[in-house]
Amino acid sequence: MAAGEFDLIDRIRARTVARDDVVLGIGDDAALLQPPAGMQLVVAMDTLNAGIHFPHDTAPADIGWKALAVNLSDLAAMGATPAWCTLSLSLSEPDAAWVDAFLNGFDALARQHAVALVGGDTTRGPLSVCVSMFGFVSPGRALRRAAARVGDDIWVSGTPGDAAAALAQWSAGGARDPVLRARLDRPTPRVTLGLRLSEVAHAAIDISDGLLADLAHVCRASNVRAEVDVDALPVSGALRAAVSDVETRRALQASGGDDYELCFAAPVAQRDAIFAAALDAHVPVTRIGRIVEGQGVVATSNGGPWMPVRTGWDHFAG
Amino acid sequence: MAAGEFDLIDRIRARTVARDDVVLGIGDDAALLQPPAGMQLVVAMDTLNAGIHFPHDTAPADIGWKALAVNLSDLAAMGATPAWCTLSLSLSEPDAAWVDAFLNGFDALARQHAVALVGGDTTRGPLSVCVSMFGFVSPGRALRRAAARVGDDIWVSGTPGDAAAALAQWSAGGARDPVLRARLDRPTPRVTLGLRLSEVAHAAIDISDGLLADLAHVCRASNVRAEVDVDALPVSGALRAAVSDVETRRALQASGGDDYELCFAAPVAQRDAIFAAALDAHVPVTRIGRIVEGQGVVATSNGGPWMPVRTGWDHFAG
Repeated sequence: MAAGEFDLIDRIRARTVARDDVVLGIGDDAALLQPPAGMQLVVAMDTLNAGIHFPHDTAPADIGWKALAVNLSDLAAMGATPAWCTLSLSLSEPDAAWVDAFLNGFDALARQHAVALVGGDTTRGPLSVCVSMFGFVSPGRALRRAAARVGDDIWVSGTPGDAAAALAQWSAGGARDPVLRARLDRPTPRVTLGLRLSEVAHAAIDISDGLLADLAHVCRASNVRAEVDVDALPVSGALRAAVSDVETRRALQASGGDDYELCFAAPVAQRDAIFAAALDAHVPVTRIGRIVEGQGVVATSNGGPWMPVRTGWDHFAG
Repeated sequence: MAAGEFDLIDRIRARTVARDDVVLGIGDDAALLQPPAGMQLVVAMDTLNAGIHFPHDTAPADIGWKALAVNLSDLAAMGATPAWCTLSLSLSEPDAAWVDAFLNGFDALARQHAVALVGGDTTRGPLSVCVSMFGFVSPGRALRRAAARVGDDIWVSGTPGDAAAALAQWSAGGARDPVLRARLDRPTPRVTLGLRLSEVAHAAIDISDGLLADLAHVCRASNVRAEVDVDALPVSGALRAAVSDVETRRALQASGGDDYELCFAAPVAQRDAIFAAALDAHVPVTRIGRIVEGQGVVATSNGGPWMPVRTGWDHFAG
């Protein structure tokens, strides 16, 4: 069903979450927001392009979910509390039914985290979704990439590799596991875990490009080395069932992108607190290595060096 | 020249404006910013897609300028002080020379307004530029669309119609006036004027979709009617020289988009203050009508009703 730009905006506005700190939301030249006193503002922005960041056959509701999820994941990796977002939606034609389906996914996740959509635009162009996400953190509490310290444990949440396995299955055109596909299409941003970790961990990053590649960003920023025991990487039952070859599976776990789990560095003394945080956040966490002096990421298996099939996910090379 | 995503990010980071209120800029999962105490946060977001919002032959530097300008214009229309922005850049291939040229235009305007680029992403996809812009306004000072009052004068800055004339010349493929084309490619966001107007005007909007169409948004939000004297619309020398037919010219002035001038409503008692503000901001302003009781926008010429050839610019219809 064709619709004008303003019809689409009305549809979007009708479904947004209400918040007291939104002075003026969708419908003016810009939104007016009241940040809480004494807090730092945390801002992330990520775009999803059709065929690059999601397969062309992805359901509109899943695109809506994922566009918000990847941005919430960035805030989770800072240990921030999300509050508001803006959305820029480019569509090849103004299709009200498509937008309604998109909003079903977008709003479901927005409501989980009480995030208000306060502005943005809808426009004509190849299918693309850009979201900016805004939240807060107490000064000094953010989980920066540059704050890992020698002696820290390295942890990961969830079971990385699932999303990449779904993408590999989709590319191969064979059997497709719906559990894995759901991990690709509807990643769970670890917002609660990130909030709890801001009290006990040193550094964090979310896994969008692949565990080892993202961990390398932490090492570079912190001027440290990471030793990762590939044998310790948590594996989901779905991944184990879908990929029988151990080395292929490990490559997906270590280098597959799009999981939006958190990889974080924390003092050894905080192990109990981290398990308690994970319990509160309803997500498993696994200790996979440690921070040492040096540079780069070293992966080992059975005590020897290990190399994955591919080492990351560059959106210009992928 | 091909480059990886991280090379491009390094190029972008190297050129951003420094500000004391940027706690952590480009390079982590999200930016950390320190909003000024007691101020409201103003947030806008606009996307430019190739072939929709700018002709395919637009110079990269002009695309960079315009992507920032249209967002600064949104803040100007709120009477806000700009501070920070984020940039999501989708490119069909990672071309470092293209990005450098783009940044030449983007940074030139960012430096004029001391706006720091604090985050975003670069990714693969059809050429598209999404910018989010953040600024501040004192509580109660924002120029809302809903605040026009019966009896107000209606004003416009600059000379609307120039950008639409350039687009018409480009579409026709004939003679092209470089002055008009510069108004299309390098619009001047009226930031200083907007700031000064926040002290004296009631309501404002920037002209992105066409003067009468954008003024209709103000009328709808304020529940008033606007009477516009088309004979009073300011016309540039370049437009007069390029378009000899009066009615065609008026249609461009009244309905052409992409000018990013401000249309605003202000009390009659503020006329002197508005001319003083315009003098400070180095932009002419013209009184073109008044706000009355009723609804909608009525355009007149020589005392009789007047209708333009087209009535607006919907990005899904344009």
